[in-house]
Amino acid sequence: MNEFIAPVELKKSFRLINHGPTVLVSATHEGVDNVMAAAWCCALDFDPPRLTVVLDKSTVTRGLLEQSGEFVIQVPTVAQLQMTEAVGSMSHSEQPDKLRVCGVELFRQPGSALPFVAGCSAWLACRLIPEPHNQQVYDLFIAEVTGAWADTRIFHDGRWQFENAGPEWRSLHHVAGGHFYAIGEALAAAPPK
Amino acid sequence: MNEFIAPVELKKSFRLINHGPTVLVSATHEGVDNVMAAAWCCALDFDPPRLTVVLDKSTVTRGLLEQSGEFVIQVPTVAQLQMTEAVGSMSHSEQPDKLRVCGVELFRQPGSALPFVAGCSAWLACRLIPEPHNQQVYDLFIAEVTGAWADTRIFHDGRWQFENAGPEWRSLHHVAGGHFYAIGEALAAAPPK
Repeated sequence: MNEFIAPVELKKSFRLINHGPTVLVSATHEGVDNVMAAAWCCALDFDPPRLTVVLDKSTVTRGLLEQSGEFVIQVPTVAQLQMTEAVGSMSHSEQPDKLRVCGVELFRQPGSALPFVAGCSAWLACRLIPEPHNQQVYDLFIAEVTGAWADTRIFHDGRWQFENAGPEWRSLHHVAGGHFYAIGEALAAAPPK
Repeated sequence: MNEFIAPVELKKSFRLINHGPTVLVSATHEGVDNVMAAAWCCALDFDPPRLTVVLDKSTVTRGLLEQSGEFVIQVPTVAQLQMTEAVGSMSHSEQPDKLRVCGVELFRQPGSALPFVAGCSAWLACRLIPEPHNQQVYDLFIAEVTGAWADTRIFHDGRWQFENAGPEWRSLHHVAGGHFYAIGEALAAAPPK
């Protein structure tokens, strides 16, 4: 955990993913860490903060978080484009050395086994809310956000600062097949009359 | 329906929302049309194409689609920033003339009562998959996509063309309180080794 990482108020943590970025999902169980990419992650509630994430049955990360009951959602940056594509394409089941091959560096928070991916712009620690029907039929997982942090160089004063930082900090928004868009220009709507 | 609107292959329809745009949700029942904005809409499956959307119990649109069992998810553009903020802030329950006040123009597809919002870049017609537990506990709705269309000036050859069109066509990504980002620069990851 570097000097730039600061907690984000839980009830504002939805703002970290409200603009629809592709995220990284990380989990650990019995000494095995893994990280995958997921475009299908979405806020679900403000307070208590909750989110949804879709995890295919073939993924190793899903198995880890089903066992441990917790995981981390993190927001990767343009600087991590290649790593994000790599962890989204390669499976730990075929390449047990996946994290090293993909260049993923992990860090931990004191008192927690959860693996956090270094270099991201934001992190949401999540506790699974077991919903077996959703998980089995739809691959849909619901979780409560129990902790949130952001890198203050790109998120501070309760909001993203993409317009005030270098382009390498922008979030990634996957379309298909390795094609992404970075987040773009800030726009403010006038208050409705 | 204007000359630029063309169908999108159903199994590629997830691409219309994969990059995490804020969407408009529209529905109709017994002659009442309504439209609301939603940042919490997410793809759920490729084939059959499914999506999730979070709809607060206070919204009139939720009541309409619970009755009719169908709705439209559409992707508004930067040119529609003010309208998107307006339909997301004003309720039909307090302002029955909401759509006119917000400047929403609707069109229909032949043989369907579903209201489509004119001027958007993409539309997904959805049939509700009733999941009472999710709807009641989480305000979470699951639907199958039964038809998809896009404006060919901004989506063609199976993908978004933001980099080849004017900035007014870009999708909107809400953060909070009327603050949005437009989608930005196209990025392609190299295929993993």
